[in-house]
Amino acid sequence: MKRIGFLGLGTMGSPMAVNLCKAGYTVYGWNRSDGKTGPLLAAGGRAAASIRAAVRGADVVITMLPDAPQVEEVAYGPEGILANTRPGALLIDMSTIAPQSSVELARNAAAHGIRVLDAPVAGGEAGAVEGILSIMVGGEADDLEEARPVFEALGKTITRCGTHGLGQTVKAANQLVLAINIQACAEAVVFLEKSGVDLEAALDVLSGGLAGSNVLTRKKTNFLNRDYTPSFRMGLHHKDMGIVTDTARAIGAVIPLGGIAAQLMASAMARGDAEIDHSALLHGVELLSGYDRPQE
Amino acid sequence: MKRIGFLGLGTMGSPMAVNLCKAGYTVYGWNRSDGKTGPLLAAGGRAAASIRAAVRGADVVITMLPDAPQVEEVAYGPEGILANTRPGALLIDMSTIAPQSSVELARNAAAHGIRVLDAPVAGGEAGAVEGILSIMVGGEADDLEEARPVFEALGKTITRCGTHGLGQTVKAANQLVLAINIQACAEAVVFLEKSGVDLEAALDVLSGGLAGSNVLTRKKTNFLNRDYTPSFRMGLHHKDMGIVTDTARAIGAVIPLGGIAAQLMASAMARGDAEIDHSALLHGVELLSGYDRPQE
Amino acid sequence: MKRIGFLGLGTMGSPMAVNLCKAGYTVYGWNRSDGKTGPLLAAGGRAAASIRAAVRGADVVITMLPDAPQVEEVAYGPEGILANTRPGALLIDMSTIAPQSSVELARNAAAHGIRVLDAPVAGGEAGAVEGILSIMVGGEADDLEEARPVFEALGKTITRCGTHGLGQTVKAANQLVLAINIQACAEAVVFLEKSGVDLEAALDVLSGGLAGSNVLTRKKTNFLNRDYTPSFRMGLHHKDMGIVTDTARAIGAVIPLGGIAAQLMASAMARGDAEIDHSALLHGVELLSGYDRPQE
Amino acid sequence: MKRIGFLGLGTMGSPMAVNLCKAGYTVYGWNRSDGKTGPLLAAGGRAAASIRAAVRGADVVITMLPDAPQVEEVAYGPEGILANTRPGALLIDMSTIAPQSSVELARNAAAHGIRVLDAPVAGGEAGAVEGILSIMVGGEADDLEEARPVFEALGKTITRCGTHGLGQTVKAANQLVLAINIQACAEAVVFLEKSGVDLEAALDVLSGGLAGSNVLTRKKTNFLNRDYTPSFRMGLHHKDMGIVTDTARAIGAVIPLGGIAAQLMASAMARGDAEIDHSALLHGVELLSGYDRPQE
Repeated sequence: MKRIGFLGLGTMGSPMAVNLCKAGYTVYGWNRSDGKTGPLLAAGGRAAASIRAAVRGADVVITMLPDAPQVEEVAYGPEGILANTRPGALLIDMSTIAPQSSVELARNAAAHGIRVLDAPVAGGEAGAVEGILSIMVGGEADDLEEARPVFEALGKTITRCGTHGLGQTVKAANQLVLAINIQACAEAVVFLEKSGVDLEAALDVLSGGLAGSNVLTRKKTNFLNRDYTPSFRMGLHHKDMGIVTDTARAIGAVIPLGGIAAQLMASAMARGDAEIDHSALLHGVELLSGYDRPQE
Repeated sequence: MKRIGFLGLGTMGSPMAVNLCKAGYTVYGWNRSDGKTGPLLAAGGRAAASIRAAVRGADVVITMLPDAPQVEEVAYGPEGILANTRPGALLIDMSTIAPQSSVELARNAAAHGIRVLDAPVAGGEAGAVEGILSIMVGGEADDLEEARPVFEALGKTITRCGTHGLGQTVKAANQLVLAINIQACAEAVVFLEKSGVDLEAALDVLSGGLAGSNVLTRKKTNFLNRDYTPSFRMGLHHKDMGIVTDTARAIGAVIPLGGIAAQLMASAMARGDAEIDHSALLHGVELLSGYDRPQE
Repeated sequence: MKRIGFLGLGTMGSPMAVNLCKAGYTVYGWNRSDGKTGPLLAAGGRAAASIRAAVRGADVVITMLPDAPQVEEVAYGPEGILANTRPGALLIDMSTIAPQSSVELARNAAAHGIRVLDAPVAGGEAGAVEGILSIMVGGEADDLEEARPVFEALGKTITRCGTHGLGQTVKAANQLVLAINIQACAEAVVFLEKSGVDLEAALDVLSGGLAGSNVLTRKKTNFLNRDYTPSFRMGLHHKDMGIVTDTARAIGAVIPLGGIAAQLMASAMARGDAEIDHSALLHGVELLSGYDRPQE
Repeated sequence: MKRIGFLGLGTMGSPMAVNLCKAGYTVYGWNRSDGKTGPLLAAGGRAAASIRAAVRGADVVITMLPDAPQVEEVAYGPEGILANTRPGALLIDMSTIAPQSSVELARNAAAHGIRVLDAPVAGGEAGAVEGILSIMVGGEADDLEEARPVFEALGKTITRCGTHGLGQTVKAANQLVLAINIQACAEAVVFLEKSGVDLEAALDVLSGGLAGSNVLTRKKTNFLNRDYTPSFRMGLHHKDMGIVTDTARAIGAVIPLGGIAAQLMASAMARGDAEIDHSALLHGVELLSGYDRPQE
């Protein structure tokens, strides 16, 4: 399993493809828009001019794309992955898409003799660059074992969550909890500041107890400085909340806080915060609270 | 500062009073209901037959009571703390009550020449027994310095949050974030289980990423086993959510998730879950989702 | 039953006192702040210089005040209603206060031999002026019969809701449903306008079906013109939502939409909309949706 | 315009097709499942054995189907409406589907020279039988004028809401407001009953004021008797709430109460209430409030 077709060389995909080169794989990279192959070429990879060129002869095809429509566009049709990948190959979709879309992809690929794993990741751009992503895998256990060396070039934690789509389910649950935790902190920040508490001291106290969380620790300076330099963009989290609410609806899981958090994230989008960090949910709480933070 | 009157020898107060004895203080303990002084006496403390007897001659008076009405009942009136403590003494209220009640207590005590600190704690019964509570202090900085040796006999982290009431404000923010984090996890648990994911594996994945939290780690077995042996009782958290929503309303901090979390905790109370652990918010999500977990 | 002491000559109380004069009662009016007795005097009523002067010799005492603290201030204490009204008289509190406060008032008054009805009203200033208020009465049925002629001078619909406090309970339920209905319309307005629908035509369609409501009909021009001339001020409805959420909490009634509606009304307050009409909940939805309505 | 192909002879479609016969139209009815053509035949209509047979030669084709997938299934493909209807004919889709699906249908039909109106209805089965539906029309004004005689055989109120899809938008807004109003009443019912108020008297009081609504009036006996005989089934309203939340998300309209109402309706579905009346949202509030209504 030496040759990999890698489709989607964006913020996440590009460093992932580079790490695969470094691990000794022959990587043929393709991206819809031009000008994304530089890092891959520098790492010894090759640029493919078409999906067909990227996947032909590949043992493994990896997709890292924004959402299900993009995955479906590269997977299906006469120029797509399924029509041009050799039977017996393994298609690993590392995009974050709806569980149901992953299930359908696996079913459609099976008709071509292609096995599929859904393998969305957590860890952000930094995790992609450093090769320490957390990878949530849905699909056959044997296929995961076959793919393990590939995954180990990309991430640190590799977890099989169950059958097709369940990697996506765990990713969705992650985004659900994360959105709510951020909003919880945002509500606490305004509550504390409006009361006149020293915010940094207070957040440190909260971090030390049962209310402590990775959001509190890692987003602390974002909250303190209203610094919304994107680590994970609101627009992506908003997309994920669509997956969360659709999936919850489909399976009959009732998520009252998730439902409101999705509305508040939609509000951030409507107010123009798509391109900044998701910690900017704090914006919305300030707005609702008529709160204009005093300048120091 | 050697003599301490300690009012309220319940689950939290009793081990706290014991730790003060161990640290060398002369502790006069009092409790409204009988039969609570055993551990204190065993540690070398003394039982006071009345509030008056507990506080007379004390350098420091500590209250550890369920809520503001109980604090006000022991503080005010001819038999109460303010009327019977020597001017110049320090009253430390370690109960969790509304910030506004703490402000009023400080103002009323000042008229008697008594200084007040609000000093609610986090860390639960285990933290009280081991003397490793997190203590959030509101009041004058000098008074905190004077009380520091007392606090150090009780806790590990001692943080001045600001003026009178702001210790309570930070405690309230803590309970706000905590309730929401628990509910977030509860929603994720049903979302994951209904999808057919292995719950333990999934929670471990979430714990490792930005969605990770102390709730996920410390309440994991509660969620996995539906074990609601109380570490912190729903009824107490419900009381605290009343403080949170009242205070938010008073200061104009808008807390959409907090508002819903408070309703869901009120639902737990209405359904009879007052005496079990607050992680039983999961009960409510199961109920809403018509989810009856398959027996193994 | 000819002599009435009337306490609270505000926007509602003043025209109510006038209507009682017109119905033939001898009305002694009192108001905390000066300059409110003009309409009453013009209608043949008398100005009382103190609570004591207003209630002395009265068969019926009526209070029409902003909230429970004001009612309690005029009711209790040596200068208050209970100490200065003759035993056997009837105290009718027409203020909107918490049911529990009404229950306590009735209990305290009973110790003075004074009977109490809680009788909050709906219908607004127009209803007060025209004497067509809807009156929700809690207390003894016999007392209501005795008071009926008085009520008939003030309102059109007089309903006994049950024992002490239950008039307030029905009023609270009214304010709960009303706040939610307004917010529902506000959400629909932004939904429709952002889609490009002609708003007036759409609201007319909604009014004609099961979604129709008095809010849709009577507030239609407020929504269409963003005209928030106060008919019922946000600040008063916000006060009422505090009663709603406190009472729901006390009785174990879970109100998810009510909880959110209360937060959104608190947001309106925090953003400075206290003095405009409660239909300005639409402001908040526009803000959340980043919606700046195109000028015609 | 004398010949009509009518696709979908369900609870709503069957009486609508009958009314068209009565108005003098030649109606060819088709339904996916058998055994639905009885009333149409009795009214002088004809049964079509296929979509093709129903639409061939028709001046107007009407679809009345559960949701967008069913509409798309009968519209597209070689056996579908677009391929078999004569250019110049008018396709009126009276189903309740997503506005975006209506826009796409209109665009696809235009390529076949077929004009489209979206014309969802309100008024329920009774309105369909009596021919007094409220019809919300999106599409060209000229096309509406051409179709007006057809609409007048079916409904009482015919409103042009704007271009393609905007009839659906108004229907969605209707379902949004309606779901929230029902839930508001449900919360009030439990609030009132748990307080001990006579429910019927209280609902009558609310109906008379600004909180009054068609839900309060028409669903009163459902609430009083917990009679959930379906007038409009929860399952259909749940489907509509999916359209509401998807559309709101797509256009950036933030609907906090709508988001929660959708969750609570999803809860009703998950708990098995799909086939009963949507007023059974009251079930959910009872459950959350741990409320078991005392038997009379």
